[in-house]
Amino acid sequence: MDTSSLDTPVPIVDWAVMKANIERLQGLCDKAGISNRPHIKTHKSVEIAKMQLAAGADGITCQTIGEAEVMADAGIKDILISYNILGARKSERLAALAQRTNLTVSADNRQVIETIGDAMETANSSLGVLIECETGNKRCGVGSSDDAVELAKHVDAKQNLEFRGLLIYPPRGDVEPTKQFLADAKTKFGKVGLECRVVSTGGTPNLPFIGQCGETEYRSGTSVYNDRMMIGFNVATPEDCALHVYSTVVSRPAPDRLILDAGSKALTSDLGGFETFGVLPDYPEARIVKLYEEHGIVDVSYCEKVPEIGEVVRVLPNHVCPVSNLFDEILCLEENGKLRPLRIDARGKTA
Amino acid sequence: MDTSSLDTPVPIVDWAVMKANIERLQGLCDKAGISNRPHIKTHKSVEIAKMQLAAGADGITCQTIGEAEVMADAGIKDILISYNILGARKSERLAALAQRTNLTVSADNRQVIETIGDAMETANSSLGVLIECETGNKRCGVGSSDDAVELAKHVDAKQNLEFRGLLIYPPRGDVEPTKQFLADAKTKFGKVGLECRVVSTGGTPNLPFIGQCGETEYRSGTSVYNDRMMIGFNVATPEDCALHVYSTVVSRPAPDRLILDAGSKALTSDLGGFETFGVLPDYPEARIVKLYEEHGIVDVSYCEKVPEIGEVVRVLPNHVCPVSNLFDEILCLEENGKLRPLRIDARGKTA
Repeated sequence: MDTSSLDTPVPIVDWAVMKANIERLQGLCDKAGISNRPHIKTHKSVEIAKMQLAAGADGITCQTIGEAEVMADAGIKDILISYNILGARKSERLAALAQRTNLTVSADNRQVIETIGDAMETANSSLGVLIECETGNKRCGVGSSDDAVELAKHVDAKQNLEFRGLLIYPPRGDVEPTKQFLADAKTKFGKVGLECRVVSTGGTPNLPFIGQCGETEYRSGTSVYNDRMMIGFNVATPEDCALHVYSTVVSRPAPDRLILDAGSKALTSDLGGFETFGVLPDYPEARIVKLYEEHGIVDVSYCEKVPEIGEVVRVLPNHVCPVSNLFDEILCLEENGKLRPLRIDARGKTA
Repeated sequence: MDTSSLDTPVPIVDWAVMKANIERLQGLCDKAGISNRPHIKTHKSVEIAKMQLAAGADGITCQTIGEAEVMADAGIKDILISYNILGARKSERLAALAQRTNLTVSADNRQVIETIGDAMETANSSLGVLIECETGNKRCGVGSSDDAVELAKHVDAKQNLEFRGLLIYPPRGDVEPTKQFLADAKTKFGKVGLECRVVSTGGTPNLPFIGQCGETEYRSGTSVYNDRMMIGFNVATPEDCALHVYSTVVSRPAPDRLILDAGSKALTSDLGGFETFGVLPDYPEARIVKLYEEHGIVDVSYCEKVPEIGEVVRVLPNHVCPVSNLFDEILCLEENGKLRPLRIDARGKTA
């Protein structure tokens, strides 16, 4: 690839690597005998979502109504929004969306169920609901299976809502507590005559444990591209990383310091548990120690070789998902070696 | 303002506060007897840039060609790009831009000067150049006035480049070393018969020291909105903060924890030296301790009162500049109490 004519900083996706990542996720789900419902928050692209469906996914996951609207506009028919939807305008949007897709949302409290239930009734729409349960990650979710049953009954009592099952987002490797939570819940739901047809779990870091908690479907986002965090979690190798931010060395103000044109508006400030803001795979001893908005400050003290001013280098982001959300368009490096622009359709659809 | 119909998370700018901020910066520059050249990287809006010019600014500062192109398209005629521009495509874009604006760039190395000089010659454009000097911030810039003179001579020798002066971005409060650097440079430039007509300094945290280093113009970006960092630097009060991200409480999974719908895709992961990811001015004891992409995890252990599920709360970002770069559109709260959408024209123009 000729990098001299790039307008850096720019994310470039190696299409062959990404395709292999899509196949690998599908293979893992197939082997575990569960549904694949990839999370599109990582790529936010209609084209890539359709590739995931073509590879065998049964539907997609979105995190916001805005993302789901973009995907529904493109004809995608089975969407899970794994989020508590609240607010008057959002409920209206949800009801409109439910009229043109097989839509499911998650909920972990009565206010959400009341609001969406009422909105669906007003709009004469129907909506599937998963009760979100918390099994150790301390994000959203009810903390006991009793509370899950109570909320599920509440869903079941609403005319236009259909209780479909449970949604979890367990901490990495938390197999036994999650398995016990789900087994316990299954017994309790059986007693009240409610069936959990869907048990949806997710998280790329948990892929090594796929199928071990009794789930029926898997939501993985990051695996489509992978990143430094996924290498750290031992679920990807550097060769599995499909997206790099290409950046130009614009200055070498001191022997130990060079400056990249990729700063926090290209790489984000997401440390992801690391001390530096991404890595340079071709100069692994170079350390991105500080970011300004358009400057990446790189400590090259320990580098055997140092890139020259004007050189275009690859940066592997710590966390790839918020990076693709910064760019209206990225470039695909296709198998013929050509670069093709790809619009990030749902970029910025945060609401 | 009725917040119940907001599609959160959404940044809202209090227009009156922002107007007062624009006036205050202009007043500080007027009082110091120097030019005001506000940095548009904070707001990235043509409308706001034009308000700054109408208030008395002599031109604007951009950090990327993409930003400058947007501003030039809107008719803004005097633009400084305070950045080393490198690369074949970028040099061509720069040359095209120089044909329709009074354009200045900064440079801190010979490669940049060669590249832009050649591009201007090819395109028959002309371009002003400031030599970037480093007086302690360890970002870009030559470290000695001798090196600055050498580079300036190099600029002077290029047919289509005009040496206009120096650009600095000093660390906060670094008045004496910067003053000495500039006085020293002035003598040396005098000896070789080159005049520094412009000495451009910047940084909102340095506004208390405006005019004290011998500068002729000031670049301030963040002061248009202000943020938690500027309060921390004692250059703004909470009342001077014009932009807040409005966010809905979507869950209260535990007594000590609630969840906002503003995560890293709304607030960024920029800690800005703090331990938490922004503040809730109306619930100051609430601590945003962790961000997922669409979840803000708030520790409410120390709160006297706690916002309820469904309530819309204001979040003051740590660092406002990368926040407005996340949204295609924000809302202006006008003096009549009405909300009006504002397009962020140069959002994502990172290259």
